[in-house]
Parts: sequence; structure tokens; C-alpha cells
Amino acid sequence: MEKVYLNGKHVNREDASVSPDDRGFLFADGVYEVVRWYGSFFLGMEEHHRRLIRSLREMEIDWPEVEHFPELCHSLLEVNGLSENQALVYFQITRGAARRTHQYPNPPVAPTSYAFASAFNPDKEARLKGVAISTAPDIRWARCDIKSVSLLGNTMSFQKAREKGMYECIFIRNGVITEASHSNVFFIKGSNLITHPPSNHILSGITRGIILELARKEGIRIIEDAVHAEELLQMDEVFLTSTSSEVTPVISIDGNQLGSGTPGEMTRRLIALTEDKLAAIIATIKNANRIK
Amino acid sequence: MEKVYLNGKHVNREDASVSPDDRGFLFADGVYEVVRWYGSFFLGMEEHHRRLIRSLREMEIDWPEVEHFPELCHSLLEVNGLSENQALVYFQITRGAARRTHQYPNPPVAPTSYAFASAFNPDKEARLKGVAISTAPDIRWARCDIKSVSLLGNTMSFQKAREKGMYECIFIRNGVITEASHSNVFFIKGSNLITHPPSNHILSGITRGIILELARKEGIRIIEDAVHAEELLQMDEVFLTSTSSEVTPVISIDGNQLGSGTPGEMTRRLIALTEDKLAAIIATIKNANRIK
Repeated sequence: MEKVYLNGKHVNREDASVSPDDRGFLFADGVYEVVRWYGSFFLGMEEHHRRLIRSLREMEIDWPEVEHFPELCHSLLEVNGLSENQALVYFQITRGAARRTHQYPNPPVAPTSYAFASAFNPDKEARLKGVAISTAPDIRWARCDIKSVSLLGNTMSFQKAREKGMYECIFIRNGVITEASHSNVFFIKGSNLITHPPSNHILSGITRGIILELARKEGIRIIEDAVHAEELLQMDEVFLTSTSSEVTPVISIDGNQLGSGTPGEMTRRLIALTEDKLAAIIATIKNANRIK
Repeated sequence: MEKVYLNGKHVNREDASVSPDDRGFLFADGVYEVVRWYGSFFLGMEEHHRRLIRSLREMEIDWPEVEHFPELCHSLLEVNGLSENQALVYFQITRGAARRTHQYPNPPVAPTSYAFASAFNPDKEARLKGVAISTAPDIRWARCDIKSVSLLGNTMSFQKAREKGMYECIFIRNGVITEASHSNVFFIKGSNLITHPPSNHILSGITRGIILELARKEGIRIIEDAVHAEELLQMDEVFLTSTSSEVTPVISIDGNQLGSGTPGEMTRRLIALTEDKLAAIIATIKNANRIK
């Protein structure tokens, strides 16, 4: 029986319920995180935890359990027998249930916390062959830096992309590419790695940070700057990053093939570096367990 | 015991629950309406109903009960003994509960419908004396024409306004005033009535439509155009409109007094015309009941 985390308890998923007066349901008044478990560790847990703390602070939601976030993710995997698997943990905290009014409840009510874990199969074909994506106007709000559940602009745009057979869509705001509906986007032009700088128009992804760190160590020149929509097809390579899919090469945009239509050299190099990093973490953990 | 409407049934409010996997909770993937009951009629029910149908269509949510919306609102008042009162009915429909993925569930799942009714006391003082408001950057998404529950930009902005002691905040996008956090905004300059034209940046309010219709009948010149932020304090009069508060005069913006700091002549005229319209509807209903 699948167990989810709800307000401090593990309950059967089909028994889990929240009030329809929850501000998460009425106003999208909540935040979330998704962390990926690699069978023996969460990648970037510290960064996910830090971002969750920031999101809660920006929204002025006081979740008393926030310091226990990593342990709560762990125990949810354990209770579902997922500790040895590849898995994702989704964690959401809302401002809680109260009579509907735009203003935050005063005094505050108890926040609602909900999490579930699921086994995860990485999309190996997408990484190997690359994916087709589309562009879409960035209709989202101006606080994309907060990982909130106010995601209607993301879901509507992604749905339209999927209906066109696309893997993802990248957003254009004021003429420049910001990010994708649930990934960040990187460009390679010559020997430069280019991505949108952190701002209120993108969610600065944890995997985005990992890729930038790997590239920096490799001496790859990084340019954190906006790419104009009309420069898009002049890019040598394009790839997406996210917690669930790590690095995904893009081989066409809006039906226009990029380069040779196969994942580019620099993208493949960054994928290899990511795999090396993961292998190194796994080796360290195995070693530590042997010493124990 | 207060009853709410939930997926076709009347249930006690404290027993009402939805799944935390509801897309309303996870993605703000839902729409809503608020209708006002004047003790014997809903004002603008036809228009609210039409807007709900449009919102659902824009979001591709198929709610089978949509044609019964007016009756569902009525019966919720009755079951709560509110038929003779001033009341508000809040009605929300989401895409329903499904395993979390940005894409819409395919095949679709049953939508979730939730409604509650509450007795309503109009804020007479606000209407009589006028209110102080502030300006705020319009951080909302670019589909404000859909009455969705993706309202985090509205609530965050309203909360900040309230903390400054303000009654409402009006939004500035690209240098012009769009609307308020949960009202439309009108300006009077000379003999002209000015308000933002319908667009993807405003929700075209039902009360907004009623005021425009009343003004048109009175021969007041209407200009549907954007007002620039820097022209704001040059306006002779400013007022807000919404379903719950009808017409509310604004007497100061960001601490700057407008005119004499009391509700202006044209605003008071439009308030009187609204009251005449309501009185006429009430008289018609009384007459009809007498004939029955």
C-alpha cells in the first residue's frame, strides 16, 4: 500500500485528503520541491533544502518541520520500500486552510504539508537521441524565482507543446529565452556555454547549478546572459536540465533541425561529466559503507 | 451546520475534503466564480455563467454540470437558509485528481467542483467615505482574462497592500494601470469615464460591464484605454468595481490625496445609478411575486 506524507504522518495515498478551503487549492498559495534519489543518495539535497527555505521565506509561510526536510524525504522512501531504487520525492507546503480571503490568515493557521515518493525510470532514449522542443510565449508570472504551485502557465504551455508532439517548450519573454516549462535551458555557441542569469523570470534549477559548476571546473567559458529568440537557430547546441532528467540534448526547435540533428559534442561531454560526478558519489558512499 | 457543495452533493463544511493529488492543489489548475445574492436575485448571473463557461473552455476542462450552475448556486443558498439574506456564493472547478504530471490527464479525469455560500455585509463605510489604495507592480501572469485559481500574484500583492493599511492595490504593467488585485479600476477625467480595455491583462469584471452599461445609457463618454501610472494623480476621480463591493470610491493613492479627499460627483452618480438598477430589479421581482 503506497504511503504518502501528510501533516507529519504517513497515510495511505487513497486516504490522504486536504480541505477544499486550503489556500493551496483556492489560491495556489504554496511552494514545493522535487528531489531525486539515486538508490543511495539525493543529488543536491542541501541546495534543494536551501531553496525550499528561501521559497517559504519569500511567501512568509512558517513550516515548523522545515529543518527536518531531508529526513522526511528519506523516511518516505523507506516506508515505501524505495530506498534501493531510483526515485523522486515530491514535497509541497501550503499556507493552510482558512476562510477564503485574499489576505493571509491572521493569526496564521497551520501550514499543510504533503509529500509522495515514486519509483523513477530515467528516459534514456531522450538523453541518447535528443529531443524536439517548441517555443512559446512566457505567460507566467514575474516571480518564477519562487518554486510555487502557481503553475498554470507552465501546465497550459506544456500541454500545448505535447499536443504538437514536443518534449518540452522554451519560453520567450520580451524577446529572449528564459527557461522551459519545467527545465532550464542552456546554449552552446562556439566554445561558450550560455544560459539565462538568475532573475525573477527563471527558477534557478539545482541541476542548472551543478552543470555550471562542472563546466567551470572544466574551464568551459560560461556566459550568463539572455539569448534572443532570433539567435536561437544560430546556436551550435541546446540542452535542457532538470532534477528528473539531468541533461537532455535538444535536436530541433519548432521543427527546425539544430546542427546535424544529433546531440552535440559539448552536450555529450557535460552528460559524461555528470555521470562521472554521480559515479564518484556512489563510490564514496560504497567506500564509507565498507569502512563502517 | 454549514453545508458546502462538493462534486454534486451537499456536505458539512468540516467533512469536505479533496485529494492532495487534485490538480487544483498541485498546479492551480482550476477556475472559479463569485456571485452575489441580493436576498431575491443574483446580479449578473447570466454574465457570470457565460464567463465560467468561457474559463472552462479556455482551460479545456469539461464540467458536465456547467449548465446547472445557476440552480446549484440557488440550492446552496437554500440549504444554508441564506435565501432571504445578502450572500456570496463561491464556486470552483478544477481539472480533478491525477498522478502529478504537467500534462493534462489523458483520458481526462472527473473534475472537482466545490462551492460555499456565506452571508455578506456590504462595507457601507468604504462606499460612503472612500478608500486609500496603493500601486504595485503587476507580477501576475499574462492570462488574467481567465478567472483561474492561479492567484498567488494577487494574494501576495494584496497582503503587502493590507500591511500598509491599504484597502486595495492597483497594478502597473508596462507603465499602465491594468486593474486591482480583486477589482477593476475606473478613472474620471473631465467628463470622461476611463478604464482598461478587455485584454489578457485584466479580468473583465461583471460589475465593470454593468457600470459601463449604466454610463452608456446616461450618455457619459466612455474611453476604454490604459491610463499611464504618471497620469494617475491627475485624474479627477478614481473608483473600484467588484461583484462583492459594487462601486468603491478611491480618495488617495500611495498616500497622495485625490481631489478634495472625498468621493467625487461622477462616482456618487454611478453609485446612485447602481442603486436605482438594484431597486428596479427588486421592484420587478416583488411585482412578479404579487401576480403569482
